Amino acid sequence: MLIDHIRKYKVILASRSPRRHQLLSGLGIDFEVIVGNDVPEVYPDNLHDEEIAIFLAELKARSFKPELDSGQLLITADTIVSINGEILGKPVDRTDAVRMIELLSGQMHKVITGVCIWSVNKKISFTDISSVWFSRLDEEEITWYVDHYKPYDKAGAYGVQEWIGYIGIDRVEGSFFNVMGLPVHRVYEELKKF
Amino acid sequence: MLIDHIRKYKVILASRSPRRHQLLSGLGIDFEVIVGNDVPEVYPDNLHDEEIAIFLAELKARSFKPELDSGQLLITADTIVSINGEILGKPVDRTDAVRMIELLSGQMHKVITGVCIWSVNKKISFTDISSVWFSRLDEEEITWYVDHYKPYDKAGAYGVQEWIGYIGIDRVEGSFFNVMGLPVHRVYEELKKF
Repeated sequence: MLIDHIRKYKVILASRSPRRHQLLSGLGIDFEVIVGNDVPEVYPDNLHDEEIAIFLAELKARSFKPELDSGQLLITADTIVSINGEILGKPVDRTDAVRMIELLSGQMHKVITGVCIWSVNKKISFTDISSVWFSRLDEEEITWYVDHYKPYDKAGAYGVQEWIGYIGIDRVEGSFFNVMGLPVHRVYEELKKF
Repeated sequence: MLIDHIRKYKVILASRSPRRHQLLSGLGIDFEVIVGNDVPEVYPDNLHDEEIAIFLAELKARSFKPELDSGQLLITADTIVSINGEILGKPVDRTDAVRMIELLSGQMHKVITGVCIWSVNKKISFTDISSVWFSRLDEEEITWYVDHYKPYDKAGAYGVQEWIGYIGIDRVEGSFFNVMGLPVHRVYEELKKF
């Protein structure tokens, strides 16, 4: 394969997200998935969009770092949604999910993924940003989506690869895979150079 | 469902493309797939990008139209790639596929899908355009992709949802699903009003 030098590492993806598993698989590299305890997604108040995403990706990495051995390469990521100065993480309940999608409806928002790649003696952190435009969604569409897809594990309460992404997204600027949860073109680039 | 009025029709997708089947399924409507004889993708010389896509979508529809009965709704689509005035359809062989991707490498191109929705007494045709930026790909990446993925059924010789789309696409402006072969948000909008 084209990033054969990566074979010297055992790649570990620390993520519960089936989308991230699928996306990393798409690069054609072998890796193992590990999941630890949930890290509370809390960050200092003074951080902004990209800093938050990097902070959270590194926070997730940090809990695994002590156990990393010299043959391993750890990948973590965190995706947030930013709209008019508000950061949307995962919705806490149905009302919150509906509120989030109502906020996004008819508006542009940014999706920011922070990625951290960490071996014993090297660390790279970076972000990728995409802009997403939702068409104006009606209440029936929003509640139908929330009740059928239960997007409680997703920042901003939607999955771009689900029904709502099919019917409601007019336009993306940037990487679509970043909106799904992992900017694979950037991961590939960084792994090539790692 | 939200486009229940469409249920009065039996929806038929006339396409061999598994991507289009998947994309239309994502809208949550029931449909049947039919395939006829291959229509040669030939168009008049004086047509431009969007006209070509509409012309070819309607051409595909026309071969089924005589058999359409009053309860049926026929959907056809055609996707083309346009770069620096050249229109790329499906590559004819390996050399042609490699040539096409070399053309796209490091450049922006347009992906244009024409869609035709046809019932016995109504016809709508429309296009959707996305801009796609490929990073600079090296020869090894291009030939590896062509030999492993054999993209001979794809306009421009690539699938955005395949390995090359993961590693090589820096940026999309517009609908990602349009690049895959069907602008589902536009199809949904038109079916709502049909």
